[in-house]
Amino acid sequence: MSNSEYKVQPVVGIVMGSDSDWPVMKAAFNICEHFDIPCECRVVSAHRTPEVMVAYGKEALSRGLKVIIAGAGGAAHLPGMLAACTPLPVIGVPVESKSLKGIDSLLSIVQMPRGIPVATVAINNAENAGLLAVSILGAFSEEISEKLKSYRQSMHDESLKKTENLT
Amino acid sequence: MSNSEYKVQPVVGIVMGSDSDWPVMKAAFNICEHFDIPCECRVVSAHRTPEVMVAYGKEALSRGLKVIIAGAGGAAHLPGMLAACTPLPVIGVPVESKSLKGIDSLLSIVQMPRGIPVATVAINNAENAGLLAVSILGAFSEEISEKLKSYRQSMHDESLKKTENLT
Amino acid sequence: MSNSEYKVQPVVGIVMGSDSDWPVMKAAFNICEHFDIPCECRVVSAHRTPEVMVAYGKEALSRGLKVIIAGAGGAAHLPGMLAACTPLPVIGVPVESKSLKGIDSLLSIVQMPRGIPVATVAINNAENAGLLAVSILGAFSEEISEKLKSYRQSMHDESLKKTENLT
Amino acid sequence: MSNSEYKVQPVVGIVMGSDSDWPVMKAAFNICEHFDIPCECRVVSAHRTPEVMVAYGKEALSRGLKVIIAGAGGAAHLPGMLAACTPLPVIGVPVESKSLKGIDSLLSIVQMPRGIPVATVAINNAENAGLLAVSILGAFSEEISEKLKSYRQSMHDESLKKTENLT
Amino acid sequence: MSNSEYKVQPVVGIVMGSDSDWPVMKAAFNICEHFDIPCECRVVSAHRTPEVMVAYGKEALSRGLKVIIAGAGGAAHLPGMLAACTPLPVIGVPVESKSLKGIDSLLSIVQMPRGIPVATVAINNAENAGLLAVSILGAFSEEISEKLKSYRQSMHDESLKKTENLT
Amino acid sequence: MSNSEYKVQPVVGIVMGSDSDWPVMKAAFNICEHFDIPCECRVVSAHRTPEVMVAYGKEALSRGLKVIIAGAGGAAHLPGMLAACTPLPVIGVPVESKSLKGIDSLLSIVQMPRGIPVATVAINNAENAGLLAVSILGAFSEEISEKLKSYRQSMHDESLKKTENLT
Amino acid sequence: MSNSEYKVQPVVGIVMGSDSDWPVMKAAFNICEHFDIPCECRVVSAHRTPEVMVAYGKEALSRGLKVIIAGAGGAAHLPGMLAACTPLPVIGVPVESKSLKGIDSLLSIVQMPRGIPVATVAINNAENAGLLAVSILGAFSEEISEKLKSYRQSMHDESLKKTENLT
Amino acid sequence: MSNSEYKVQPVVGIVMGSDSDWPVMKAAFNICEHFDIPCECRVVSAHRTPEVMVAYGKEALSRGLKVIIAGAGGAAHLPGMLAACTPLPVIGVPVESKSLKGIDSLLSIVQMPRGIPVATVAINNAENAGLLAVSILGAFSEEISEKLKSYRQSMHDESLKKTENLT
Repeated sequence: MSNSEYKVQPVVGIVMGSDSDWPVMKAAFNICEHFDIPCECRVVSAHRTPEVMVAYGKEALSRGLKVIIAGAGGAAHLPGMLAACTPLPVIGVPVESKSLKGIDSLLSIVQMPRGIPVATVAINNAENAGLLAVSILGAFSEEISEKLKSYRQSMHDESLKKTENLT
Repeated sequence: MSNSEYKVQPVVGIVMGSDSDWPVMKAAFNICEHFDIPCECRVVSAHRTPEVMVAYGKEALSRGLKVIIAGAGGAAHLPGMLAACTPLPVIGVPVESKSLKGIDSLLSIVQMPRGIPVATVAINNAENAGLLAVSILGAFSEEISEKLKSYRQSMHDESLKKTENLT
Repeated sequence: MSNSEYKVQPVVGIVMGSDSDWPVMKAAFNICEHFDIPCECRVVSAHRTPEVMVAYGKEALSRGLKVIIAGAGGAAHLPGMLAACTPLPVIGVPVESKSLKGIDSLLSIVQMPRGIPVATVAINNAENAGLLAVSILGAFSEEISEKLKSYRQSMHDESLKKTENLT
Repeated sequence: MSNSEYKVQPVVGIVMGSDSDWPVMKAAFNICEHFDIPCECRVVSAHRTPEVMVAYGKEALSRGLKVIIAGAGGAAHLPGMLAACTPLPVIGVPVESKSLKGIDSLLSIVQMPRGIPVATVAINNAENAGLLAVSILGAFSEEISEKLKSYRQSMHDESLKKTENLT
Repeated sequence: MSNSEYKVQPVVGIVMGSDSDWPVMKAAFNICEHFDIPCECRVVSAHRTPEVMVAYGKEALSRGLKVIIAGAGGAAHLPGMLAACTPLPVIGVPVESKSLKGIDSLLSIVQMPRGIPVATVAINNAENAGLLAVSILGAFSEEISEKLKSYRQSMHDESLKKTENLT
Repeated sequence: MSNSEYKVQPVVGIVMGSDSDWPVMKAAFNICEHFDIPCECRVVSAHRTPEVMVAYGKEALSRGLKVIIAGAGGAAHLPGMLAACTPLPVIGVPVESKSLKGIDSLLSIVQMPRGIPVATVAINNAENAGLLAVSILGAFSEEISEKLKSYRQSMHDESLKKTENLT
Repeated sequence: MSNSEYKVQPVVGIVMGSDSDWPVMKAAFNICEHFDIPCECRVVSAHRTPEVMVAYGKEALSRGLKVIIAGAGGAAHLPGMLAACTPLPVIGVPVESKSLKGIDSLLSIVQMPRGIPVATVAINNAENAGLLAVSILGAFSEEISEKLKSYRQSMHDESLKKTENLT
Repeated sequence: MSNSEYKVQPVVGIVMGSDSDWPVMKAAFNICEHFDIPCECRVVSAHRTPEVMVAYGKEALSRGLKVIIAGAGGAAHLPGMLAACTPLPVIGVPVESKSLKGIDSLLSIVQMPRGIPVATVAINNAENAGLLAVSILGAFSEEISEKLKSYRQSMHDESLKKTENLT
C-alpha cells in the first residue's frame, strides 16, 4: 500500500497516526482505487514521530502530491500539523475515540486557528475524505469530474430503487 | 460583490443563507481578493430559495467555478445541499448560532453521510475557508502555491516577533 | 408499502434518506396502519437525489398529502429541505447516528432558521412521529380524534396495571 | 391578549410558563395575527399551577382549539404535560435558559417517551412555532394554505434581493 | 411491593413512569428494606396518567409519606410534576435513556425553575436516592441516623480492605 | 450571618467555597429567613481548608443541624465531600462557572458514586436549595409544611395573574 | 502491590477510589514497573474514607513520595482532594463512567479552582499518568530521563514500521 | 520577559501560540515570579512556526528547563506537540475559545493518545499551571516545597476570614 507499490506518481497521500486507524482509513484508499487515482498510505504519527511528520508535510508538494488525507483520533493533531507544514489542501478524518466517540477528534481537527485550515469530514467517514479528494482533483480534470458524475449517478439510481426494500 | 463586478470569470463562489452571515463570510472574500482570485458572493438560501440553490449547484461546474464556499448557521443545510448538486469541492463554514454558539451549525455541516462530503472549517472561520480554497487552487497552480507560501512565511515571521509583546 | 399498494389516496407521506432508516421509521407506518390512515413510504435522499426530493415536496400538497414524516440521521437535511418545498407540516425524526448517537441528527433537524419549521420528535421515536400525524389529522376529524382518545385510554389503563410488575 | 379579546373562537392557544417568556413567545402571536388566525395567549405554569394546566389541556379540544403552542425553559415540562392532557397537536418552543442556553429546554421538550409527542421547534424560535401552526391549519384550509404560499413567496423574493447587501 | 403489602404506613413512596424503570429503581427499594423503612412502589406516568399523578402528589402528605423518590428517563417530567403537587421533598432519579445516555433525563429533572426543587441524584443511581431518603428521615430520627452511621462504617471498613484486591 | 448572630440553634447550614459564591447563595439564606428557619452561613473550602471542611461535616449532626446546603463551581467538591462526612442530607448548588457555564459544576456535584448522595438542584438555583431544605423540614413539622403550602399558594395566585402582562 | 511489597521507598503513590478502577489504573503501575520506579498502589476513597484520604495526602511528602497518581470516575473528587492535602504534584486519571463515558469524571478532575491544580490526563489513560510521573522524575534524574528517551525511541521505531501493516 | 531578562537559567518555559493568549498566560508567569522561579515566556506557534516549535521542544532539556507550560485555544496542538518533542513534563492550559468556550481547547489538549501525556489544568487557569510547575519543582527542592506550604497556608487563612464577607 506504500507508494512503492505504485508505478505512477501518487497524487493523494493517505496518512494516519497508527495502523489501528487503518480499518477506518481504508475507505479513503478504496475510493482512490475506484477512481484510479494513484495514492500512498502511510503511518505517520504527530506524537511518536514528529520530525518524520514535519518532513512528510514539507516534501509533499515537491513529491507531486496534490491532496493529503489525514486521520487521527482523540487529541488529533496529525491533520492540523501536516496542514501547517504544506501549502497543499489537507483533509482531516476524525477517527472515533473510545470514550468520547470522536467528538474530541472532531473538535481537535476542525477548530483550527486562523491561518491554517483543515478540510474536515464526518467522524470515521474516510470514504467522504476520499470523495472530497476526488472532487478537488476533478475540479481540474474533466476525466475525473466525469467519473465522479457517473459515481453520483449510480448513487442516485440505487437510491431510487431502495423504496422497494421498505417491507 | 456579485460576479458582474468581475471582468474575469469567478473561480470561487462564496454563498451564504442570509446577508446577516456577511460579517462572518466577508473574511473569505478578503482572502480571495488578497490572492487575486476572482470570486462571486451570493445570498442563496437552502430553505427560502431551494430551487435557486439547486440551480446554483447544478450550474457551478459549467459556469467555470472550481470551489464553492458556503456559510450557514443553526440547522445549516446550504453547504451539504450544494455539495449534493455539484461535483465541485464545497467548503462549509459553520456560522455561530445565537443559543448553541455554532455547535449545531458545525454538526449540521460536518456530519454528512457517505457519498457527499463537505470540507468543513472551524466555527465562524471564513478566513480559513478562503485559505482552503487558495490551497486547492494552489495545488494546480504554481503561481498561487507560491503566493500561499509567501503568505505563510509572513505569518511565520510575524509570529516570531510576537514574543516581544509579552509584557 | 409504496403508495401503489393503497387503494385510497395517502394522506401521510413517510420518507427517509435510506432504506437503512426503515427499522426506525417503520414505527410511524405501524401507527398509520393502526389508525387506518392511508400512507405511503418512500426512500427520498436529500443528498443522493436532491431533485427528486424537491419534486416530492413541491407535489405533496397537490397530490393530497396532509402531513409528511421525514427521518434522517447525521447531518440530517431531508426534513428541513422538504419543509422548504411544501406548505404542509413536516415532522422530523432524528435517526440515531453511529458515533454521536443522534445529537447531530437532532440539532440538524430542530434548529431550523426563522421561516421554515420542522416539527421535531425525539431521537429514533418514529412512533411519536406517527402519533403526531394522527394528532394533526384528528384536530380536523372527530373520528380520528376519538380513535386517538381511545388509544390514549388504553395506554392509561395499561399503565395503571404495571405496578403489579414491580417484583 | 386573552381569548376574551377575540370576537371569534380562538383556534390556536399560545401558553407559556411565565410572563418572562413573552418576549420570546410574542413572535408566535405575531404570526397568528399576520395570518388572521384567532389565538389566545395565556400564562399557565406546569409547576406553579399544575391543576390549571391539566384543565387547560383537558378542555382545549372541546373549547375549539386546533393547535397548542407551549413555550418553556430549563426543565421545560409545560409542552409535554399539555400534550399528555389533550389529543390536539402541541408545538413546543424551548426557551433559552440562562446557564445552559436552552439545551436543557430543548431536551426536556423534544425527548418525549413513546406515546405522547411534542412537535418541537428550534430554541427561542416561536416564530416557527406560529408558522408550524399555520402549516397545520393550512393542510385543511385552502385559504390559509394559499396565504402561507404567498408568505413563502415573499421570503423567497426578499432572499433573492439580499445579494445586493453584500458590500 | 404496592403499599398494601405493608402492615405499617409507608413513609417513602417510590414511583416511576414505567415498569421498565424497575431494574434501576429497585435499588431504592432495596435500601428502604435494608433500613426497615416502610415504602410503597408504584408505576405512575406523568404522560400516560397525568391525573393519577397529580392525585398521587396531592395526597402524599396526608397519606403519611415523608419523602417521594421518582425515577424517569428522556424528557423526564415525573419528578418535577410530583414536586409541583406536594410540599414533600421529591428525590429525582434520572434513568439512563437509550440514545443520550441520560443527559436528557438529568437536565429534565435537575434544571427546575425557581419555586419547585427536585433533589436530583446521579444517572441511574437509585441506590443513592434511597440513601438520601434515609438521610432525610435520619435527620429526625436518631435510630435511623445511627443505622446510617453503621452503614457508612461498613462501607468505610470494606473500602479499607480493597487494597488487597489490587493484583 | 454567621451562626453567632442567631439566638436560636441553626438547623440549616449554608456553606460555600468562596465569598464570591455569596451573590448566588444568598437566595438560600433569604428563603430560610422568609420561613423563619434559623441558619448559619459559612465559607468552607474543600480545597483551601480541607480539614476545616471535614470537621464541619463531622460535627454538623451533633451541633444540631438538620440540613446542609453547599454551593460550589467548576470541579465542585464541597457538597460531595461534606456529604461524605455527615449522615445529614446535603443539598448541592452548582454555581455557574465562567467558561463552561456550570455544566462542570453540575456534573461534579450530581454524579456521586453509590453510597454518598448529594441532593442536587439546578445551576445557580440556591433559592430552590432553600426551598428543598424547607420541604425536608416541613415533612417533620406541620407548621413549616403549612407555611410552605401558603408560599406555594402565593406562587399559584401570582402565576394566574400574569396572563394580564402579555401585551 | 501495597508498598510493603517494596524493599525500597516508593516514590509514586497510585491511588484509586475503588478496586473496580484497578483494570484501568494498572497501566500506571505497569509503567512504573517498566521504569523501575518504586511505587505503591492503594484504594483510598474520598467519599467512603475521607479521613484516611486526608491523612494519605498530609503524610505523602514526609513519607518520601514525589508524585501521586489518583484515578476516579463520575463526581471524581479523589485527585482534587488529595491535591488539596499535599504540596506534591497530583496526576488525575478520569476513569470512564458508565452513562456519561467519563466526561463527568474529566470535568470533575480538570476544572479545579485557582490555587489547587490537578495534572489531568485523558479519560482512562492511566498509562499516560504513569509516563507523566516518569517525565517529572526524569526532569531531576538523568538516568530516568535517558530511559524515557529510549522508551520514546522505541515508540518512534515501532511507529515507522507500522506502514507495513496497512494491507 | 524573554529569558535574556534573567540572570539565572530559566527552569520553567512558558509558551503560547499567540500574544493574544498572554492575558491568560501571564498568571503562570506571576506565580513563577512570586516563587522566585526563573522562567522564560515565548510565543511559539505549532501552526505558524512548526519547526521553531519542534526545535524548542528538542532543546528544552539540554537548555536546562525542568517544566514547560504551554497555552493554546481551539484545536490546541501546542502542548501536545511540545510534549512529543521533549521528555520534560509539559503542562497544558486550555485557553477559552470564542464560540465553544474552551471545551474544544480542553479536549484537544487532554485527550492525548497513549505514549505522550500532557498535564492539563482547567480552562484559562494558567495560575494553576504555574502552581503545578511549583509543585513539581517542590517535590525535589525543600525550599520551594516550604514556600508552597506557606502559600497554601495563606490561602487557608484568607479563606477562613471570608465568612465575614457574607453580608
